Amino acid sequence: MTLRVGVIGGGQLARMMIAPAVELGLDIRVLAEAEGMSAQLAASAVGDYRDLETVRAFASTVDVVTFDHEHVPQTVLRALVDDGVAVHPGPDALQFAQDKLVMREKLAELGVPQPDWAAVSDSAALQAFIDDHGGKAVVKTPRGGYDGKGVRVVRNADEAADWFLDSGDALLVEELVSFSRELAQQIARRPSGQMVAYPVVETVQRDGVCAEVFAPAPGAGERLSQMAESIGRQIAEGLGVTGMLAVELFETDDERILVNELAMRPHNSGHWSQDGAVTGQFEQHLRAVADLPLGDPTPRADWSVMVNILGGPAQGAFEDCFDAAMTEHPDAKIHIYGKAARPGRKVGHVNTTGDDLDDAVYTARAAATHFA
Amino acid sequence: MTLRVGVIGGGQLARMMIAPAVELGLDIRVLAEAEGMSAQLAASAVGDYRDLETVRAFASTVDVVTFDHEHVPQTVLRALVDDGVAVHPGPDALQFAQDKLVMREKLAELGVPQPDWAAVSDSAALQAFIDDHGGKAVVKTPRGGYDGKGVRVVRNADEAADWFLDSGDALLVEELVSFSRELAQQIARRPSGQMVAYPVVETVQRDGVCAEVFAPAPGAGERLSQMAESIGRQIAEGLGVTGMLAVELFETDDERILVNELAMRPHNSGHWSQDGAVTGQFEQHLRAVADLPLGDPTPRADWSVMVNILGGPAQGAFEDCFDAAMTEHPDAKIHIYGKAARPGRKVGHVNTTGDDLDDAVYTARAAATHFA
Repeated sequence: MTLRVGVIGGGQLARMMIAPAVELGLDIRVLAEAEGMSAQLAASAVGDYRDLETVRAFASTVDVVTFDHEHVPQTVLRALVDDGVAVHPGPDALQFAQDKLVMREKLAELGVPQPDWAAVSDSAALQAFIDDHGGKAVVKTPRGGYDGKGVRVVRNADEAADWFLDSGDALLVEELVSFSRELAQQIARRPSGQMVAYPVVETVQRDGVCAEVFAPAPGAGERLSQMAESIGRQIAEGLGVTGMLAVELFETDDERILVNELAMRPHNSGHWSQDGAVTGQFEQHLRAVADLPLGDPTPRADWSVMVNILGGPAQGAFEDCFDAAMTEHPDAKIHIYGKAARPGRKVGHVNTTGDDLDDAVYTARAAATHFA
Repeated sequence: MTLRVGVIGGGQLARMMIAPAVELGLDIRVLAEAEGMSAQLAASAVGDYRDLETVRAFASTVDVVTFDHEHVPQTVLRALVDDGVAVHPGPDALQFAQDKLVMREKLAELGVPQPDWAAVSDSAALQAFIDDHGGKAVVKTPRGGYDGKGVRVVRNADEAADWFLDSGDALLVEELVSFSRELAQQIARRPSGQMVAYPVVETVQRDGVCAEVFAPAPGAGERLSQMAESIGRQIAEGLGVTGMLAVELFETDDERILVNELAMRPHNSGHWSQDGAVTGQFEQHLRAVADLPLGDPTPRADWSVMVNILGGPAQGAFEDCFDAAMTEHPDAKIHIYGKAARPGRKVGHVNTTGDDLDDAVYTARAAATHFA
C-alpha cells in the first residue's frame, strides 16, 4: 500500500514536499488553511489547524502527520498522539520550537552554547538585564514570532511596554550578540534515531528575513563545521526531534557559535539542498517523518547558493520575469511558490551550484533580480 | 497569471512532469484515462482522449496542451489547432511519431541515415524484401506499437500473415540491423525554434523494453556525439517538433548510426536527466511546450545511470523494498510511479550519478533489484 503523508499547513514548505513525495511514490495530502494556498495541488482538506475535530478527520486519512509550520496547538497535537496517530515531529519536541523560553531553558539544561538570556515578567527586570548587558538587548515574544516579527532590539525597557501589556506573560530577553555572521545547521532524524547532518551554511538576513544562503559556509574549517554539526545532533537528540531540524547560529568574532533559533521542519536555510545535495531537505523530511532510511546529504557541487525572491512582480508579469531570468541564466534553478506578491513576502527562490562561489552567487542574484 | 499546462494522458510521463511544474510555479492539469492513474495528483479531468468534445473541454481550461503519449488522433489534434489551442507537439509533427511509415518516408526525404526499409502490402512483397536482406527482416505495424509490441523479427513472410489479415494496410519492413549497441539522442525545441541537445546516451533493451541507460554513452567520442546531435537537431527542425524529442539510434559495427524510432515527449532514455542534468527532461519539456527559454542540459556529473524497475513487488511490500534499497544505497535516487505491479511493467526507476561509471551502475542495479 502507498504510504500516505499528511502535511498540516498549505504554505510553500508543504508545496515543496510535493515534488519529492511524487517521485518517491508517496501519497501526499495537505490540510490547507484556505483554498488557493501554495500547496493547493496536494490539498485534500481545507480547515482550521487549531480545531481538533478538523485535524483529527484529516489525520484519519493518512499514515503519518507532519507540518508546514509549528503553530498547531499542543492540545491538538497531544490528542492526536493519544488517538494513536504518528505525529512527526511530536508535541514533546515541537514545544521547544513553539516557545522560545521553553527552548532556552532546555538548551541551558543540555549545556548548548547560547546567548545570555532571561525570562522577564516586568519592565524593571527587563531594564536590569539591559543595564547588565551594555545598555541594549533583544526582546522576543516567546510564542508566534517568525521572519523578524516578535523580535525587537531595545535600549530601554519602555520599548517593550506594549508587549508586557498585551500578553501578561513573561518575555524572553537575550544579549545582543556581536556576531560576525549567521550560520545554520540542518539535521534530519528518524523516529528510530538515525540522524544525518548537512554541511553548516552561511545565511544572510535582511530586515529579519532570510535573503541569501551559501553552502557550505565559506571559510568554515573542520573545527567550526564539527562544532555546528555536534550542536545540531545534540539538539536533535536531546529534544527528540523527528524530521528536519534547522539550528540558526551566530558565529562571533572570537569564533564561538551560539544558538539563535530552532525550526523543526524544512527551513529557508536548507532550500539550497533541493538542487545542491544528493538528497534535498524536502525529500529528507518526508523520509524522516515516514521513518524511511535517510538519504545522502552530501553536496553535489563545491558551492551551492540560494537567493530568495521577495515581493515579486504584480500578477500577470511573471511570464516576462521568467523569460528574462531563464534566457540569461539557463543554469539557474527557479522555484516559484504560486503566492500572490506583496512587498517583502517570500514568493520564490533561485538555487545555483558550481565550482566557483562568486559565479554561483552572481547567477543566483542576477536571476532572482528579474522577479523583484 | 499562472501559466496552465494541460497534459493529455495520466501515465508516468505526465506524473514526472508534476514535480518540475510545481517548482517552476506552473499550474499542471492532466486529462487522465481513468481514476487512480499514475498522474492522479494533477488530474483535473477524466475522459477518453479520442473524444473531441472531452479533449476540447479539457483544452479550454489550460494555456497549452501537451501529451503523455502519442495516441491522440489527428482529427482531434487538428480540431484543437483550428480552435486556436496551443498544441505542442502539434499534429504536423506528431504524425511522424504516430505512423512509422510516414516517419520513414520523411526521414528519407531529409536524408537522415536509417535502415533499409519498405512499405509492403502483401506477403509476396514482404518475402521479396526478406530475400533481398539475407533471409531475415523486421516487420512493424506502422501504428500503435510500443515497448516491443507491434515489432517482429521474421525469416518468412508467413510469420506476419496475421498482421496483413488484421489491418489490410501496408506494413513497414526494415533490414535487421547488425548493431553493436543502441543509443538515444534527446533534443528540446521551442515553438520559436530554440533548441538544446542532451549528450547522446547508451540504452540497453531487454525483451524490447528499455532496461538501463548510461549517460553519456561510454566511449562516445566527439565524432559520434556530434553525429548524433546533428541527426537529432535535423529531425527536430525538419519535423517541426516542439517539446522533447527522443531519437533512438543503432550504432553499427562499422561506426554508422541509423535512426530506429522517434518519440515526441519525455522518454525513458532521458530519465537519467532528472537527477543527472542541470535541467531534467521533464522540466525541459514543460519549458519547451510553454515556449519558455530552455534550461541548461549539461550533465551534473561525469556519469549518470538509469535502471528501470520492472514488475515490482506485490502491493503492500513496497515499504520493505524501500527500506532495503534506501538503507543500502542512500545515494540512489528512487522514482516510483504509483502503478500496480505486473510482470515486466515499468513501475519505477533508479538514477545514480558519480565520477566512476562502474560504481554508478552497481548502485543503480543494486537499488533497483530490491524492488524486482
